[in-house]
Amino acid sequence: MIIRLATSDDWPRVFPFYAAVMAEGRTYAFPPDQSLEQARRWWMEEPPGQTVVAVDDGAVVGSAKMGPNRPGRGAHVATASFLVDPARQGAGIGRRLAEHVLDAACAQGYRAMQFNAVVETNAPAVHLWCSLGFTVVGTVPEAFAHREHGLVGLHFMHRHLR
Amino acid sequence: MIIRLATSDDWPRVFPFYAAVMAEGRTYAFPPDQSLEQARRWWMEEPPGQTVVAVDDGAVVGSAKMGPNRPGRGAHVATASFLVDPARQGAGIGRRLAEHVLDAACAQGYRAMQFNAVVETNAPAVHLWCSLGFTVVGTVPEAFAHREHGLVGLHFMHRHLR
Repeated sequence: MIIRLATSDDWPRVFPFYAAVMAEGRTYAFPPDQSLEQARRWWMEEPPGQTVVAVDDGAVVGSAKMGPNRPGRGAHVATASFLVDPARQGAGIGRRLAEHVLDAACAQGYRAMQFNAVVETNAPAVHLWCSLGFTVVGTVPEAFAHREHGLVGLHFMHRHLR
Repeated sequence: MIIRLATSDDWPRVFPFYAAVMAEGRTYAFPPDQSLEQARRWWMEEPPGQTVVAVDDGAVVGSAKMGPNRPGRGAHVATASFLVDPARQGAGIGRRLAEHVLDAACAQGYRAMQFNAVVETNAPAVHLWCSLGFTVVGTVPEAFAHREHGLVGLHFMHRHLR
């Protein structure tokens, strides 16, 4: 598996699992029922951000986007988001993407990485981020309308990069 | 003093203190050195969000914007931002704006309000939000490059509305 910068031609290969993950209603508060073109700007980052894809034997199996969490006086902190094709989950693709993105954020001079909305019931994600050195800074109660569990909390998670 | 919905004609009267507050470098991580037109979309909300102005004796002395903190499965939580003309600070304008915005968020059916980036050294703001029932959910360390104090934390603050 390789991880490389995404091109605009990759988006139609990411979109099917982007749409599948959003439709599951367990992990992301993104607009519902987006078309291919509506969703493009929600995932394909413009500089200084970037989007990468994980490619396994020619198939795009995951993607991540990374960029400044805030502009101006907050632009030294990165944020990132991750997607793995549901058919390929549990195979370590998320971890590979996360390691890649953390390395890229370090190389680009960010001082820290922050996640703003990790669904507290998403145990695999919380476990992965903790294993990579993130801590839960706080949890906003009832901030996510989970498809099965109803209103659940959203974690803010953070780790220094230097 | 009255508080009313902002019109596009109000923006040139908000922008001078918007720009002044941003230039102070103590409270907001917004893009630096924006023109009137560049900054407009950062403050003048589109529906379902809204922007209001505080008008005292014909002068626009403050403004607030409010809307969903996230789309989709997070759209039941509001967020808001506030500006008071530095020449008019300490006169209760921020509190009046905050009370107005909390009432509006309640009326629009939001279940809670969340602030994502309250600079921890901004004691008047932290005091105001606490007095209005907000609590600090967590603090992201070193997330804001304060003009005088260097890297300081950003509080996430939250209160239920029902």
